[in-house]
Parts: sequence; structure tokens; C-alpha cells
Amino acid sequence: MTEIKFKKITLIGIGLIGSSLARIIKKQKLADHIMIATRRLETLERARALNLGDDYTTDNAEAVKDSDLIIVSVPVGASGQVAKDIAPFLKPNAIVTDVGSTKTSVIKQMQSELPSHVHFIPGHPIAGTEYSGPDAGFASLFENRWCILTPLPDTNKKALSNLSQFWETCGAKIELMDPEHHDLVLAIVSHLPHLIAYNIVGTASDLEKVTNSEVITYSASGFRDFTRLAASDPTMWRDVCLHNKDAILEMLGRFSEDLASLQRAIRWEDGEALFNLFSRTRAVRRTIIDAGQEIDAPDFGRQTPRDKP
Amino acid sequence: MTEIKFKKITLIGIGLIGSSLARIIKKQKLADHIMIATRRLETLERARALNLGDDYTTDNAEAVKDSDLIIVSVPVGASGQVAKDIAPFLKPNAIVTDVGSTKTSVIKQMQSELPSHVHFIPGHPIAGTEYSGPDAGFASLFENRWCILTPLPDTNKKALSNLSQFWETCGAKIELMDPEHHDLVLAIVSHLPHLIAYNIVGTASDLEKVTNSEVITYSASGFRDFTRLAASDPTMWRDVCLHNKDAILEMLGRFSEDLASLQRAIRWEDGEALFNLFSRTRAVRRTIIDAGQEIDAPDFGRQTPRDKP
Repeated sequence: MTEIKFKKITLIGIGLIGSSLARIIKKQKLADHIMIATRRLETLERARALNLGDDYTTDNAEAVKDSDLIIVSVPVGASGQVAKDIAPFLKPNAIVTDVGSTKTSVIKQMQSELPSHVHFIPGHPIAGTEYSGPDAGFASLFENRWCILTPLPDTNKKALSNLSQFWETCGAKIELMDPEHHDLVLAIVSHLPHLIAYNIVGTASDLEKVTNSEVITYSASGFRDFTRLAASDPTMWRDVCLHNKDAILEMLGRFSEDLASLQRAIRWEDGEALFNLFSRTRAVRRTIIDAGQEIDAPDFGRQTPRDKP
Repeated sequence: MTEIKFKKITLIGIGLIGSSLARIIKKQKLADHIMIATRRLETLERARALNLGDDYTTDNAEAVKDSDLIIVSVPVGASGQVAKDIAPFLKPNAIVTDVGSTKTSVIKQMQSELPSHVHFIPGHPIAGTEYSGPDAGFASLFENRWCILTPLPDTNKKALSNLSQFWETCGAKIELMDPEHHDLVLAIVSHLPHLIAYNIVGTASDLEKVTNSEVITYSASGFRDFTRLAASDPTMWRDVCLHNKDAILEMLGRFSEDLASLQRAIRWEDGEALFNLFSRTRAVRRTIIDAGQEIDAPDFGRQTPRDKP
């Protein structure tokens, strides 16, 4: 891999993804200058206290001046406004990219706003945790994870190659994908799992005959696994739902159909159908482990908290 | 805590739970003699190779002779047959317990078979991993976990106290519960989560426009969390569905109702409803961490596999 370096990188949004990138850019010396922009002054001050960059501003326009690479890491619903803010101030041949969880909506919001003299290459690193904000980031977040880029038909090859190299230096593996297909794939592997997790945690909180305290106490029997995804950032996930609506509704429809069929098998005590479903799903985890996308250790290698409350 | 010791403990079933108990009984010297019984010769030979006990048999009747504590760790659908097998050979005042995930069905299956001169105390340790079989067990499985006992109205107090002490020596905390209530609580904290996980893994495997390979590759974005529960033992979970049918159908009904409402909020782009749901579920995880039932580290403290495939 040849080395890649930018004179100035601008990070718009300094949450989990933005602040992880800031840490890596500094560590790997990927830029001479790191400019950090975020909307809320409190978040900006936290980024400054953590020494994540070289310069800090709440003004997106100010932030992108003379910048060679602009990475937009905001909830997808805010992409259009960011594009509007920065468009008149972008340097010719700058690369503008994003990290949003939906791609067709982000392209629709940003492409028409951005000038033709910049290289707009939408992206999405498949990595994260349930924590958010500038404190949540860490430099190894993208290691051995995939980063999907969804270049537009006329994307400049050199710019694409530079952005790919940037992500590879962050530890990621690159996959190019059509934006519509990205949205369909992510609807099943990410959006549906989050919605299901939010939903079951909601259902469990609303019971009359089982107390919330019982749900908490006995959560190690399965429930607690779901609370991790259901602890994800609410603004981000509201926007994902609103901006990948069609693909999500399609996947929710399929899930509900399958669940109705499972429910029927339980009602009619069809042990064979139950056993068959429960058997074929077992193999899937093994495949994920073999693909290097999951740890082999039981229970995620999770350590039991030792101290009693 | 006073020390507890049994002359002879019989473990019927030597899977994840049984073999964890065997390891603890040996380590903590909880018995002079450990007798291991299981149906399949292959499993029994594996238990022998692992040196989990002192004596090994495929004959349940043989196994319980002169035993002071009999722990039945089999799929709940097999409880009745085990009770039939062992009933005529049980020593007076022996304690018979189980570890099954459903309690009213186990009581219904076992109680009528067992002689009145033994102490039958149903139980359920809330602990486990997605692995099964004699190799999957480990001595710290029950540490800081709850063990629910559902004693019958006429249960002998001394026997109950002895069994509680046994579990406490295994590291567990004891809670006494009504069997019907146990089944309702477990339906939401354990049975529904497993069914939802099995279901979503099934749905994802059946798509036409997204390949299985894509589901695997990008699973770190949420999906892989569900594959853990969906890798659990199919026989055990088939039996749970068949033996806690009413409570599970009740919880599935509530879950589906809530999911339909969430789906509607997405279709009609009700951002406020989505944000409100996604916000209130976030707090639940914090409560579980504070209760000592979950680890604080991001992503379950899961380590990224470092080696590329």
C-alpha cells in the first residue's frame, strides 16, 4: 500500500465515527491539519478538550476552506443542510465524502447542492458501538471492518483511489456498491436488527404482570443482548428510518410474515417446523466467525461483572 | 455461608449446564461421588474423557441409586420420561431438582411420577452461552447469576435450604418464585428474545436480492448480535416453545402489535414517535449494567478478530 496524506482534512460531525477518524488521522499522520466542525458548541469544546484536531469551529463554511478531504459524519437527515452550508466554499478538486447509514437519500440531498468542481464520493464504514459522542471514538474502530463506497457514474478514478487508500490506512477493507443495493443490504443486516431490538425493549418495558425490575434482573437469559443495539443514538436511527423507508418496510414485512408463521407453529405445536428453523440458523453464526466478522468465544467473550451491585 | 456437602450427586444430562455443574462440584468438593448419566453413549464417553465425574452410565435408574441430590439437566420435553425412569430407585429424602427453562410443564410432567418420600424442588439457573454439550461447560458459568427455585407448597424447608446453599456455592444468587410467574417472566426475558433472533436469522437467509454472503460480510452492523442466540441448541428451544406455549404466544402477540405500530410510524414518517421510542429504550441498558447483569464496555467488550480470513 502506498502512503496517502492530505494537507487538510475537515471533519464535520465529531461523534463516534468522526472522533474515531480524528484519532486515526492524528495517529497515522494522514493530514498536516485537522479541522473539526460540529453544530453544538458543547460537543466542539469536548472535542477540543480531547485534543482531537488542530482547529475547531461551529461554522461549516469556515471549516471547509482550503480543505482537501471533507468527511461528513452527521445524522443522515442533516446531510442536505451540510452540503448547502459548505458548497460555495469548497476548494476545486476537494473530495467530499460521508459515513451515513443510507446512501440513496444522502446522494439525493447532497449531490445537487455540491459544485461540479469537487469529487463527491458517498461512503459508509460498517463499524460502530452503542456509544456516541466525541468520547466514544477509538482508533481501532475500523480494523478489519468493511467500508462501502457508492461512487457515482462519473466519479474521478484518482479521487476514488485516494479515498479508498485513506480508508485502508484506517484499517478498513473497501467494497464498491450501487447505492440502491447498499440500502437494501443495510436494511436487513443493520436497520431491521436495530428496529427489532428497539421494539422488544419497548415491549418488555410495557408489561403489567412482569415488572421492569424482573426484566432487568433476569436479562442475562437473552434479553440483555438486544439492549445494546437499543441503546444506539436515537437521532441517528430516527433519520435512518425516515431515509431508508422503502427498504426497511420491505424487510419488516418479510420479518413479520416469518414471525406469524413461527407463531402458528408454536400454537399448533409443530415441533418439526420449530426444530428445522432452529437448526438451520445455527450454521449462520459459524459462517460469520469463519469470515472473520465475529469472535469465536462463547457469549461474545463477554466478562461477567464480578462486583455485586 | 455454612459448607454444604453431599455424599453422592447424580447429574442426569451432561450438556452445557450439567457439565458446568460437574466441574463446580469437583472444584468445590460438593460431593464425595459424582455420578453422570446421559442418554447418548457418545456424549457419555466424551464426559468420561473430560473426567467430569466418578462414574458413568446411560441408565437413569442405575444412576440415582443411593444418590442424595439428583439434578436433571435435559430438554424440558424429556423431563417426564426421566422422572418415570428414576422414580422407583430414588432413596428416601433425596432431593430431585432440574434446571429447565419452563417450570409449570416440568412440574406437571415430573411431580406425579416421583414418590412422596423424595424432595422435588424445581429450579432454573439464569445462565448459559450459545454452545452446548459436555465441552461447553465451565466452572464460572453461574457466578453472579440468578438461580430461580419454584418450590411446591409442601416443600421441606431443610431440603430447600440445602439446595439453595448448593447453588450459592456454585456462585448463584437465589430467588424463590411461583412457577406460573417464572414462566411469564422467562417468556419475555429469554424465550421471546431467542425466537426473535431465530426468526430474523431465518428471514435474512431467505432473501432473493441480498445474498447470504452479503449478510455475513456486513453482519458487524447489527445482525451478528442476533446470531448468537440463534445458535442455541435446537432441541432445547423446540421444547421450550412447546412447553411454555401460552406465555410465549402472549408475548409474541404484544411484540407483533408494537412492531406493527413502529412500522406504521415509519410508513407515515412520524419522526417524533420514532425518536421517543428510541430514546426510552436507551436507559434500559444502563439499568442492566448498574444491576451488575451486563458489562459496561462498548460492544460487549467484544474483541475484533484480528486475522483476516
